Amino acid sequence: MGTFLVTGAAGFIGSCLAHKLIKEKNEVVTIDNLSTGFKDAIPDGVIFYEGNCHDNSIIEKMEPYKFDAIFHVAGQSSGEISFEDPVYDLQSNTQSTLQLLKLALKIKCKKFIYASTMSVYGVQPDRPISEIDEVRPVSMYAVGKLASEHYLRIFQQYGLQTTSLRLFNVYGEGQNLLNLKQGMVSIYLAQALKNKHILVKGSPERYRDLIHIDDAVNAFIYAYNRDGNDDKIYNVSTREKTTVVCLIEKIINILNENISVEYSGSTPGDQFGIYGDFSKMKSELGWSPEVNLNEGLNRMINWAKGKKF
Amino acid sequence: MGTFLVTGAAGFIGSCLAHKLIKEKNEVVTIDNLSTGFKDAIPDGVIFYEGNCHDNSIIEKMEPYKFDAIFHVAGQSSGEISFEDPVYDLQSNTQSTLQLLKLALKIKCKKFIYASTMSVYGVQPDRPISEIDEVRPVSMYAVGKLASEHYLRIFQQYGLQTTSLRLFNVYGEGQNLLNLKQGMVSIYLAQALKNKHILVKGSPERYRDLIHIDDAVNAFIYAYNRDGNDDKIYNVSTREKTTVVCLIEKIINILNENISVEYSGSTPGDQFGIYGDFSKMKSELGWSPEVNLNEGLNRMINWAKGKKF
Repeated sequence: MGTFLVTGAAGFIGSCLAHKLIKEKNEVVTIDNLSTGFKDAIPDGVIFYEGNCHDNSIIEKMEPYKFDAIFHVAGQSSGEISFEDPVYDLQSNTQSTLQLLKLALKIKCKKFIYASTMSVYGVQPDRPISEIDEVRPVSMYAVGKLASEHYLRIFQQYGLQTTSLRLFNVYGEGQNLLNLKQGMVSIYLAQALKNKHILVKGSPERYRDLIHIDDAVNAFIYAYNRDGNDDKIYNVSTREKTTVVCLIEKIINILNENISVEYSGSTPGDQFGIYGDFSKMKSELGWSPEVNLNEGLNRMINWAKGKKF
Repeated sequence: MGTFLVTGAAGFIGSCLAHKLIKEKNEVVTIDNLSTGFKDAIPDGVIFYEGNCHDNSIIEKMEPYKFDAIFHVAGQSSGEISFEDPVYDLQSNTQSTLQLLKLALKIKCKKFIYASTMSVYGVQPDRPISEIDEVRPVSMYAVGKLASEHYLRIFQQYGLQTTSLRLFNVYGEGQNLLNLKQGMVSIYLAQALKNKHILVKGSPERYRDLIHIDDAVNAFIYAYNRDGNDDKIYNVSTREKTTVVCLIEKIINILNENISVEYSGSTPGDQFGIYGDFSKMKSELGWSPEVNLNEGLNRMINWAKGKKF
């Protein structure tokens, strides 16, 4: 049992991580500004502070807690929106990280786990990308996340164990079906359920490495349980390529309904395709993904069918 | 003749750049928060707005101008201070860049020249570093500057010509002799003049690539005059290594006074040594440094001797 700060517990990943920690009898505190998350998504028992992680006034309220770890999951998570309001993106994804790293040192919290992103890799060749590959962010979102990774590496020198998890495309039960700017699976699924029509912005041949939320949450727990006092970066991925056209086919098959598909335009800063090698996390921490795509999609779609639009 | 925004014209480099542009009959506007700069350093004729480049309220005041280029020179420039207040460093060096890039697009300014830094390279082997070498920032300051470079590259796609100048250690007449946290030459020279004693934080064998202010200012002009609509990164350096011990010897020789030297401690995030290959800027733009170190130091020391402490 421990005490944890999970930022963004009103959002998809933060909510699921907080839920798992609460279930295991830990004390969990969260900060969330509810800009895209939902208060209802914050699991029962979580101590909730409403506000921005980049604001001093909220960070100061965390000082009395003795956190065993800070999981920094909150942040503007849409590459698309990062172009519409890059300053907010920087505050929400990078300034917030600085504030929380400073907090960690101040309250002598020993572990800091950061939700980074595969977006930091940018445009890459068609092979599994590993953590030693060059980074070349092509969205504001990715620039801010990469800067945060650098901050973690620098703060590690002050006695903090730091871990950046480069999350690939996380999907699953609990994903926001109302936000049409974030989350490839949820965007297509929501359109299919609501409109019986899927509008794809960009090429059908684009591909992603889709990782189920349960595997992503496990990755945070594995990262927390790791030994050492160093800075680490891990891909959280499946090493499986899924093209847009294949994903949509699977969704339509599982739904077993008549759904039309339209391809049009593109999304700024979108990556053509990327999939990730997770052998580093497997060999060093023993983590590997356990939910395959068919199982994961079935679980998500069953969950989504019960939702109202 | 043109109209230019030079941010930070109360600071060392911004002031010298603005001076040169004014001398050539251009209209020059500046934004400066006077946090480390001096109002007196702003050249006569420059239109001055006091405030932070990361604040919307100041940026909005620039909208009526038709700038031929934005030279973004303002920013917190001390690696050491970036550790004391990393959030301000991020705002001042990175959020400001986003605000000014957005401004450039809005007012259809075509050219954006950014004062980046050799600090983005971090710890490097003992050979001339070129723009294709890997970056690995080790200070908060460098993280923020590197993020800005990425933002330039992304904004370039929207029709802006963008140039990041990775300035090595700029020194010379006009450098702030009162700020003991920024500028290796000015820190040692100021101590020598004021105390007849130089305290060096770090190893005497550290080395730097010292570039005279006139050469640095010229680099901005060459960058402005370049053709093309692309994003470029250039080292602004001399390819000459100068160790701390050698620099101090030169200063003492030129001063021709009895000055004691003490070595003690270190500066967080300081680089052991770095010097830069400038062949890219030379071959593509024709720029190369013209002021050698002995000449530059003589000029600076003559200037500094007339100052009061």
